[in-house]
Amino acid sequence: MPAKEKTLNDLFLHTLKDVFYAEKQILRALPKMAKAAESEELKQAFETHREETQGQIERLEEVFKIIGKPARGVQCEAINGIIEENKEIMEDFAGSDALDAGILAAAQAVEHYEITRYGSLKSWAEELGMQDAARLLDQNLQEEKKTDQLLTQLAEARVNTKAA
Amino acid sequence: MPAKEKTLNDLFLHTLKDVFYAEKQILRALPKMAKAAESEELKQAFETHREETQGQIERLEEVFKIIGKPARGVQCEAINGIIEENKEIMEDFAGSDALDAGILAAAQAVEHYEITRYGSLKSWAEELGMQDAARLLDQNLQEEKKTDQLLTQLAEARVNTKAA
Repeated sequence: MPAKEKTLNDLFLHTLKDVFYAEKQILRALPKMAKAAESEELKQAFETHREETQGQIERLEEVFKIIGKPARGVQCEAINGIIEENKEIMEDFAGSDALDAGILAAAQAVEHYEITRYGSLKSWAEELGMQDAARLLDQNLQEEKKTDQLLTQLAEARVNTKAA
Repeated sequence: MPAKEKTLNDLFLHTLKDVFYAEKQILRALPKMAKAAESEELKQAFETHREETQGQIERLEEVFKIIGKPARGVQCEAINGIIEENKEIMEDFAGSDALDAGILAAAQAVEHYEITRYGSLKSWAEELGMQDAARLLDQNLQEEKKTDQLLTQLAEARVNTKAA
C-alpha cells in the first residue's frame, strides 16, 4: 500500500503488533531476570509480573479480535535493544553488589517502553471510536504503571537496606 | 575487572555513557523528525528540544568532569532500536494523515527512555553522595518530563483539530 493511503488504523495495527511482539519477548526475559536477581522481593516482583504479562498478551489478542486481524507480532527493534542491554548488565554485574540496582533500572526501561506504547495505542483506539479496545489497552497501561511504581519502591528499599 | 568487584560507581558510569551516547543520537535524529513532521507546532517542538538536548549534553559533560572521567559514550542498543523504529514510521507513513501521530508516538518513546535513565542516574548519584551530579541529572530529567507532557498536548491538539 502506498504510504499516502495509510491511515491511523494502519498505525494502530502496526503498533499493536509491535507491542504484542514486545510482550512476548518480555515474557521470555522475566524468568531470567527473576533468576538473576539477588533479593527475594525483586525475584517475587518479576514472577508476579510474568503472570500479569501473560494476561496482557491475552488482552492484546482480544484487541486483535476486535479489529478482525490475526494476532501476530512484528519485529520491534526497540524492545530487542532494551532486552539486549539488560542481558549485558546481568552478565557484567553478576555477583556484584550493584547487580540488583542494574536489573531494577533495566526492568524500569522495559516498563517505560510499554507505558509509552500503551498510552499511544489507547488514545488512538479512542480516536478511532473503539471503546472496548481502549478499555483493554488502558488495563495493560495501568498494570505497567503499577509495576513501574513497585520497582521504584524496591529501588528505594534497596538503598535504605544498604544504609541500615 | 571481574564482575564481582564491580560497584554502583561502575553501574553509574556505564549508564552515564549510555545516556550520553543516546543524547548524541537524538541530537542527530531531531532535525530529521522536525523536517518530516507536518504540523508547524510539532516542527517547532522538535527544534526547541534540539536546543535543549545540546544543553543536556553539556550537563552530562559536567557530570563526567565531577567523577573525573572522559566524556565518552557507549553503544546503546535501546536508543538505536527506538530511533530505527522511528525512521521506519517516517518512511512508511510519509504523506499519510497518520504521519504526525506516528512521529509523536516515536518521540514519546524516546522521551520515556530518557526519563527512566535519568531517574536511575539521579537516584544513584544521591546514593553515592554526589549532590552536584544529582542536581544536573535532575535538570535533564525535568526537561524530558516537560517535553513528554508537551508532546502529549500536541497529540491531543491533533485529535481536536481533526475532529473540528
